Amino acid sequence: MAKPKADYVVGVDLGGTKILAAVVDTQGNIVGRSKRKTLPSAAINPDPPLVADRIAVTVQEAVAAAKLSMARVKAVGASAPGPVNVDTGWVYKAANLPGWHNGYDLGPELSKRLQVPVVVDNDVNLGTLGEAVYGAGQGYADLIGIFVGTGIGGGLILGGTLRRGFRWAAGEIGHMTVAKGGPLCGCGERGHVEAIASRGAISRRLGEAIAAGEPTALMVKEGGVIASGEIRKALDASDPLTQRVLLESEETLGIFIASLVNLLDPQCVVLGGGLVESLGQPYVTAVAEHAYAHFFLKDDMDKVKIVQAGLGDNATVLGASVLARNLKANI
Amino acid sequence: MAKPKADYVVGVDLGGTKILAAVVDTQGNIVGRSKRKTLPSAAINPDPPLVADRIAVTVQEAVAAAKLSMARVKAVGASAPGPVNVDTGWVYKAANLPGWHNGYDLGPELSKRLQVPVVVDNDVNLGTLGEAVYGAGQGYADLIGIFVGTGIGGGLILGGTLRRGFRWAAGEIGHMTVAKGGPLCGCGERGHVEAIASRGAISRRLGEAIAAGEPTALMVKEGGVIASGEIRKALDASDPLTQRVLLESEETLGIFIASLVNLLDPQCVVLGGGLVESLGQPYVTAVAEHAYAHFFLKDDMDKVKIVQAGLGDNATVLGASVLARNLKANI
Repeated sequence: MAKPKADYVVGVDLGGTKILAAVVDTQGNIVGRSKRKTLPSAAINPDPPLVADRIAVTVQEAVAAAKLSMARVKAVGASAPGPVNVDTGWVYKAANLPGWHNGYDLGPELSKRLQVPVVVDNDVNLGTLGEAVYGAGQGYADLIGIFVGTGIGGGLILGGTLRRGFRWAAGEIGHMTVAKGGPLCGCGERGHVEAIASRGAISRRLGEAIAAGEPTALMVKEGGVIASGEIRKALDASDPLTQRVLLESEETLGIFIASLVNLLDPQCVVLGGGLVESLGQPYVTAVAEHAYAHFFLKDDMDKVKIVQAGLGDNATVLGASVLARNLKANI
Repeated sequence: MAKPKADYVVGVDLGGTKILAAVVDTQGNIVGRSKRKTLPSAAINPDPPLVADRIAVTVQEAVAAAKLSMARVKAVGASAPGPVNVDTGWVYKAANLPGWHNGYDLGPELSKRLQVPVVVDNDVNLGTLGEAVYGAGQGYADLIGIFVGTGIGGGLILGGTLRRGFRWAAGEIGHMTVAKGGPLCGCGERGHVEAIASRGAISRRLGEAIAAGEPTALMVKEGGVIASGEIRKALDASDPLTQRVLLESEETLGIFIASLVNLLDPQCVVLGGGLVESLGQPYVTAVAEHAYAHFFLKDDMDKVKIVQAGLGDNATVLGASVLARNLKANI
């Protein structure tokens, strides 16, 4: 009997709370998927090998869901929420995974478990790659991906190649200073764009105003967290507090995007992440207007596209599938 | 008689006040040079063709100074103080050259006058290229050049290639926002790094403090301009006002460099320009210390070099010679 053709790849999105795996065919279609929590709720020893075991099972389940065998899988691409040596598959650290602060050899460990080649890259890099190949950034060789959620992450594709950086540390755009001496960032520094324009920062500012007695239509959950969907509802109800805080975040993100354009002059900026998905096109349009107003070179300004991401939660698994397909990340 | 070998190139640095031309051999040695004012003091019609004429004469004089004939010149590389379409030699605009606001076809016009191939690029791009090939950035494929003078300009070499940008507008780093809502920039926006850390901004802040009656050892020239050399002398005399203003500019430039590193993770940052040359290594060391303190990824931090430029006024002509030699700008 002829050996079955290994013409599928699997993309994995490893996050702090969940693991997603998707089987992808040669056309970029997802033909099977699986999902599980990154760690069981009562994990006694939540160390990296346990997570690797769970990723491997999630991959196998996705392959089974596609009614395929592992023999049909050419390679696996996996993301990690931190800097990754893409040549070796080593994850330097992952702030929101317990026990990963000293790094982990994720690529080789997954490959040992699954018996297929495994390539690993940073999750936001792969989200940007996914959008570039299958999403809102299709057709652009120069692309900045900006993902706004609890924090702000970014990926750069320049001249058709993901910019990983000399220490595999490129794309930490959330930690660029836009307002020196400004609000405190989660990293301990002040005035980073993440400290003003992320969903986390907006939520914190709203919470502070509410604590100070400002009236609002916002519903605040236990623990003080204000979700993206709640922010959208308050905007729909024309809540003045939410409008004011959001306006400042849109303006800051716009000025920040203009700075990136003044530096890199790309063809396209793709805005994705939880906040962007909740607030949709009106938010993207507002941010883009602020950005264009601050471009240094105004010539051909509208040729620089600022668009909403198109793939939602699938961006990273699809980007990971591109990496697995090519075993590198040129588009 | 055999045709003489065209094994020399000429690099030209076109600025708002002067034109420099240098004949460069295959080893990167300058073997002849010439210099003249960009415009004669009483130019009746200071339009682009007059400047092109003067560049052509300056090139011919440099070739004569090298005791060579134009037949020995393979190509000319020229810089322009503004965005340039490197494929065609078109200069979009040059803010400090009268009559260039609608652009000028500098490459073809020079080629017509000199009867050799001419390539043109932005002056700061070429300064960065010069430092990468012959100066402080030798051996680095990933390099950010930052030139601090009246303003702040920058060039990016990523993966061995100059980043020109989709609209030929990359590298406008002086106009990136580091202090939203901060001091007014020459461009009309607020909080750009140029509005805080350039020699022009330092000079303006010192002038404001002096006008407000603050005591100082600084000598202010007519017109209120405070030159880089004067700032150095006041520092040598431990002038408290100058120390305070300079400290803020060093801190801001350091934070800004850290932002660029968090984004691009390069191997090397080269600091050049008039202010850097006047203040020298103590200034570069101070800026670098502020930068390292704000790196997001601290791992292998010292592998990212932050160094003083090595070529002074020759950086741009030497970068232009590289462009002329290769007729492109890969290193």
